[in-house]
Formats: sequence, C-alpha cells, structure tokens
Amino acid sequence: MSEFCLSVRVYYEDTDAGGLVYHSNYLKYMERARSEYLRELGYTHLLLAQQEKLVFVVSQINIDYKKPARLDDTLAVSVAFDNVQGASLTCLQTVRRDADILCIGTVRIACLDSDTHTPKKIPSPMKAKFNHDY
Amino acid sequence: MSEFCLSVRVYYEDTDAGGLVYHSNYLKYMERARSEYLRELGYTHLLLAQQEKLVFVVSQINIDYKKPARLDDTLAVSVAFDNVQGASLTCLQTVRRDADILCIGTVRIACLDSDTHTPKKIPSPMKAKFNHDY
Amino acid sequence: MSEFCLSVRVYYEDTDAGGLVYHSNYLKYMERARSEYLRELGYTHLLLAQQEKLVFVVSQINIDYKKPARLDDTLAVSVAFDNVQGASLTCLQTVRRDADILCIGTVRIACLDSDTHTPKKIPSPMKAKFNHDY
Amino acid sequence: MSEFCLSVRVYYEDTDAGGLVYHSNYLKYMERARSEYLRELGYTHLLLAQQEKLVFVVSQINIDYKKPARLDDTLAVSVAFDNVQGASLTCLQTVRRDADILCIGTVRIACLDSDTHTPKKIPSPMKAKFNHDY
Repeated sequence: MSEFCLSVRVYYEDTDAGGLVYHSNYLKYMERARSEYLRELGYTHLLLAQQEKLVFVVSQINIDYKKPARLDDTLAVSVAFDNVQGASLTCLQTVRRDADILCIGTVRIACLDSDTHTPKKIPSPMKAKFNHDY
Repeated sequence: MSEFCLSVRVYYEDTDAGGLVYHSNYLKYMERARSEYLRELGYTHLLLAQQEKLVFVVSQINIDYKKPARLDDTLAVSVAFDNVQGASLTCLQTVRRDADILCIGTVRIACLDSDTHTPKKIPSPMKAKFNHDY
Repeated sequence: MSEFCLSVRVYYEDTDAGGLVYHSNYLKYMERARSEYLRELGYTHLLLAQQEKLVFVVSQINIDYKKPARLDDTLAVSVAFDNVQGASLTCLQTVRRDADILCIGTVRIACLDSDTHTPKKIPSPMKAKFNHDY
Repeated sequence: MSEFCLSVRVYYEDTDAGGLVYHSNYLKYMERARSEYLRELGYTHLLLAQQEKLVFVVSQINIDYKKPARLDDTLAVSVAFDNVQGASLTCLQTVRRDADILCIGTVRIACLDSDTHTPKKIPSPMKAKFNHDY
C-alpha cells in the first residue's frame, strides 16, 4: 500500500474561538493531501474532468479526533489508498504533529462520470498507479 | 428523544468547482443546528464557557453522503441528542432537501472543562433538558 | 435607493483563535445578504445563469472594520444597490450588532456572460428592479 | 521596502460553483503570506500574544480582482510592509499566477494589546525588522 504525506501549516483561518483548529477543517487538510497525491501520480482534477470525464467525490467519512491542533502548528497529513476497486476507493488518512496523532480518518471516495454523475469504473492504468507502492 | 431542525440556505461560499456543496461544509451546517438547539434549550457557547466552565468539542464523526446539495437550495438540518451520559453525548443529524435525505451524520460530542480541557460531567439540569422531549 | 437586511448568526465556524469573527468571513455575510436580496427581487443565481446567461462577480472590495463580532452574536447585514449602470453596480453594505456598526463595505459587482465571462449589460427589467425602492 | 512571497495551491475548498476561487478566499491567501512573513522574521502569532502581549488585526482592506484563479492553480502571494509607524502598518499584497496579476490588495493592520484590545505601539526591534530589506 502506497502512502503520501503533505505538510500543512495552521493559520488563523483554520482556528475557532475555542483557540484550536475547527473540526471540519481537518477534512480540508485531508482533501489537500489527496489532491497532492493525485498530482504526484500525474493527475489534476481539471485534467481528470476534461480528459477522463471523471470526478472523485466523497461518499463517506469517519473521523476520530484524538488531540487538537493549534495556531502556528505544522502538521503532517498522510493519505494511503486502499481497497481500490470498481468505482470506488478508500483513503486511510492521519493528521500528525511530530509524533502525536491528532486525527484519524477513513474517507470513502466514489469515482463518477463528470457529465452524468453516475458511478464510473476507475480506469485500469489509474487503478494500477493507485495500488502501486509509491 | 427530542429533535430540533434548522433551515439553512446554500450560498456560493458553500459550493465548490464541482458545482455542489463542498463535503466538509455539511459539518458546518450540522454544527449550526447543534448551536441553535442549545440556544433553544437556553444555552449559548459563551455563557457555557463563562458560567459553567464547560465547552463541547467534537470527538468523532461519521457522515454518509447520499445526494448532493446545490447553490440556492434551502436545506433542513436536524439534530437529536442521544446517549447523553457522563461527559459525552451523541448527535444524530440529517440534512434534507424537501423529502430527500442528502446526508446522515452521527457526531460524538465530549464535554470538557473550558480551562483544563479535561472531560467534565454534563451537569444534571442540562442532562435533563437534553433528554427531555423537545 | 432600496435597501435589504439579512439577519446572520455567528457560529464557531466564523470565529478564529483571536476569539472574534475572522476578517474574511464578513465578506461571506455580505454575499449572503446580496444573494437573499436578489432572491427577494425574484432572482436566484442558478436561474440567472441558465435563463439570462448572466453571472455576477465581485470586482472590487473596500472594507472598514470598526468593531469585532463575537461567537453567538446576531448580526444585521444590509445591502443597498447603487450606481447600477452598464455591466456593473455598487453594493453599499454594513454589518451591525444592535446599534453598533461593526463593519462597512463597498462591493463593486460586475455582470458577466455566464459562458464567455465577458462583461454583459444588466438587462433593463433587472436594472429597473435594482433601482426601485424596495 | 522588504517583500516576501508564498506559494499557494488552489484546492476544491477554495473554489465555488462558478468554477473559480471564491472572492473572500484571496483574503485567506494574503493572511497566510503575512503569517509566513512574520515567521520568517522570527515571530509566530502565539509567541507574540504570550511574550509581547500583542496581536495584529485587520482594520481595512481594499482588493482589486483582475483575473480569476482556478482549481489546481499554483499561485504566488506577495506581501510587503509599508508605512510601519505607531500602532499600525500597511501590507501591499498581490496574488499572481506566473506573470499574471490576479488580485491586488492593500491591507491595513492594527497592532493591539492582546489583553485589552487597545492600540499598542509596534515594539522598536520589530519595527526595525519590518522596515529592513528582506
């Protein structure tokens, strides 16, 4: 199983009046890591939509919040693709600050036709890349 | 089990380049509904922090995305409190557009001391209100 | 000059670690007020794009921040259309909490063709509505 | 006048149903650049608040939107400090994609006491750093 990791800084925009990162913003961090991983594998969202007529959407999310992130933190956001088959895949994701795991997520992704928004099988070359060790 | 429902409009800020509501924004809608329900029961976040030394934080989230919401939609966001005991409670939440269920969420909430950020038992009068039929 | 006012609640999502509303979120409040005003006048963004082939975009913003808004606040966001001519208009906007003016904005809006993204003259019936006292 | 530049990627979270970056998100990009510039000069927000009892807040913003940014774009966000005196400074900011200037901003910043939220003179060593060529 391949894995990718993105470094993310916490800015004021990410925090709330509790002084910590607002809970839904970890989902943004996870999406950034998925987007950068796709880019690393040779895909951008716009090219996928235009050339492959394909768009990835989130169909299910499970998040465990363990410890809070704070303003000025530098976080490491990981993503590993798992269970890539048919028109969906699973992303196993963590948000870490140094050795601390702050947040663990399982994000189920559906592959849809960008015009009809119906399920579309992940193309074989892409599936091969997703399954290959990075 | 009591239930509360908040009406939410979809604005440009909520959507993304896919033309639909960005997935993490449903979590914002759910938090708005929880906040308004608390207010309906007589509590605001600032008074809870100042008078009860208490803050609610999200500890776990499970979301199923069924159908997408679009720009200009009027959504109904429900919240029901369940399993209110000790220092935590569960919120059962849905986002609907007319008869369509767009999104179902289970949000686990921890009650913390607003100074020490350690678990704090939900006060009995509050617990009673949370369990009472609305 | 007609004016419209929208009531907006401040939620956790709107605040930052400084304990106040994050500065860019006042722009979201102003956009919500513009969208609701358009709706009041009979227009939604989706119908404008589909039927009139027209989209409104922000071309210039000036904001003066006077006093901060806080979590749990109820704000009144006003919008008045001014200088509606050709392919643009100006929105004079304020954000108030009771008698206090928190924020004053001047938002210049361009009317574009939704396909070509070139300037498009505001249709006469719409211009008439925009200039009519509300 | 010193200048700093931050590279920013456009993700789904930044875009709206118009297919472009939502207008208020350029303000987030500009704030990220200011935060990173401060860090480059040896300051983080948390240390400023704790050690210097000082917080920077936005008091005025003028933004000109020239051209739109899109999903997957890589942007360069610049910041230069100008007119640093007393309890305020001005940030001259641009957002560029390659040679194209997408957006120009002038952001007026006030320096406040982090406890009392009243104006506080920018400390001399900081002022010297802000005025020094980077």
